[in-house]
Amino acid sequence: LAWIGVDLGGTKLQGAVVDVRGGDVDVLRGGRRPTPPGEPAAVVQTITELVHELGGLDDVVAVGVGAPGAVDHRTGTVLQAPNLGWSDPVPLGEMLADALGATVVVDNDVNAGTVAEHHQGSGRGLRDLLVVFWGTGVGGGLVLDGRLRRGPAGYAGEIGHTVVRDGGRPCGCGHRGHVESYAGRAGLEREARLRHAQGEPTALVELAGSGRMRSRIFARALDMGDAVAIALLDEAVAALGAGIASAVTLLDLDAVVLGGGLGDRLGAAMVGRVEESVRSRLFASSSALRVRPASLGDLSGALGAAIVAHDALADRVHVPR
Amino acid sequence: LAWIGVDLGGTKLQGAVVDVRGGDVDVLRGGRRPTPPGEPAAVVQTITELVHELGGLDDVVAVGVGAPGAVDHRTGTVLQAPNLGWSDPVPLGEMLADALGATVVVDNDVNAGTVAEHHQGSGRGLRDLLVVFWGTGVGGGLVLDGRLRRGPAGYAGEIGHTVVRDGGRPCGCGHRGHVESYAGRAGLEREARLRHAQGEPTALVELAGSGRMRSRIFARALDMGDAVAIALLDEAVAALGAGIASAVTLLDLDAVVLGGGLGDRLGAAMVGRVEESVRSRLFASSSALRVRPASLGDLSGALGAAIVAHDALADRVHVPR
Repeated sequence: LAWIGVDLGGTKLQGAVVDVRGGDVDVLRGGRRPTPPGEPAAVVQTITELVHELGGLDDVVAVGVGAPGAVDHRTGTVLQAPNLGWSDPVPLGEMLADALGATVVVDNDVNAGTVAEHHQGSGRGLRDLLVVFWGTGVGGGLVLDGRLRRGPAGYAGEIGHTVVRDGGRPCGCGHRGHVESYAGRAGLEREARLRHAQGEPTALVELAGSGRMRSRIFARALDMGDAVAIALLDEAVAALGAGIASAVTLLDLDAVVLGGGLGDRLGAAMVGRVEESVRSRLFASSSALRVRPASLGDLSGALGAAIVAHDALADRVHVPR
Repeated sequence: LAWIGVDLGGTKLQGAVVDVRGGDVDVLRGGRRPTPPGEPAAVVQTITELVHELGGLDDVVAVGVGAPGAVDHRTGTVLQAPNLGWSDPVPLGEMLADALGATVVVDNDVNAGTVAEHHQGSGRGLRDLLVVFWGTGVGGGLVLDGRLRRGPAGYAGEIGHTVVRDGGRPCGCGHRGHVESYAGRAGLEREARLRHAQGEPTALVELAGSGRMRSRIFARALDMGDAVAIALLDEAVAALGAGIASAVTLLDLDAVVLGGGLGDRLGAAMVGRVEESVRSRLFASSSALRVRPASLGDLSGALGAAIVAHDALADRVHVPR
């Protein structure tokens, strides 16, 4: 018996066939495809093809999907997903269940990644855990008393949109001074291009050209000693430190896992700098807080989606069939 | 059968005899005394006298005490309590159990107040709740999924020491830019006296003289249209708004209760301003968040201590006897 997990990203679809039973989770097979732009029907079609490429549905109990944006995990509806260009609710769970003839569970991709790091990654066995995904945006998930915290509206964990400098730098969400304003890859790229245009030349723009300023470009520019990259990452580390310290103080946490595109790429040394930044801001000086690098990388979303599907059935959550 | 709750404050001891059984909590009798300065033994003596003044221990199942500072509620030890001048651990639970010949449960006073507002006050019946005590400092307690969140080290809820302006105004705790830096009565008094000395005369200092700038003096100065009081309270409302908004975004909360000396004194209109300040900073624009005034006032600590004692025995927590 196996579960299939699918991480539905803005640019790619990552799938994994997973054996979730017992304490250990084994990834049996994996595969990926580009995410088709446009209509939800095209995404459903591509996921169907990916599932068949992964060996089909024989012996598969259920399919879990992690989707970017706001998801009602009880109905499997994606309420809105700007990264996919979906501004209206999409009943993705029902559509996929019809197309596949299988049980489908849909959840938020960050929740899926959090469950994966808690179940099988760097947060394994911990009772309380904050997982921070530091990438284009800054997402997060919370495990409290051993369970994923969703909250009544399902958006718990949004550490990227907590305030570290009230009235400060604009955030993509329309507010100001958020962790993501200073630490998200998109905000860093905007700021780097602005400084470059204003006469502060930076290798970040030279390396990226007119293309996307990817995480590896930040790593390269830091290695080269680029002043703008160093200054921007210093601000990012301070913002992550302040936001995570506030979460730790509010919830009395002792473990944080830091991953995501930038977190994974900049590596353990940068995670250590973030830990130091958090610790220097902690109210409880006796805190045992540790910040650990995430360990599942790109696979966390697909793996987590499979685990979420497994757990949803175990909890007898209503799922379309 | 009754439970006795004692709120051990820096200046006064408030006691209450409470019937905790069933859904409703009835306060049967109350009483108060000044907190004796100095040694823990004097506090134990005064609590013993207060308990006898309240009718003694016949029919009393247990005594609960809410103490200011860090408390290990499992052992009843006050680890440190600067407001009482206690810098070393005090086994208050054991000392009181010996003196009274009764079962004693000791917890943090803010936890007790939170439990009271959740059980019997403005947060009654809510599954998730943040209670903010806006007074000399800014304390807080969290109820998540119907249970008080303590965290592994027992300091969860410290919203006063979350960051709203990284690197900003100094906080009494030694860090900077906390909610309490801008909103705590002690910080407001410091700032008002500073501005007064620097040539910005304010009714706050005129009314307080060399005495403590009490909550009612802030209420009076606001009524008088005092410019410094207005400016300082505007900053306080912004800081409370940013800190509470971050907590709501991190945890997906829809209910906050605001009390404490300043919160109670400045009243429902000010609580409404804080609600507006929070809402203007919320990531989730669809949030149903409400900020309600606390309803138990001064009695919340004693009432909550009795409820905490009741719940501790129901949970079979180890207590000294």
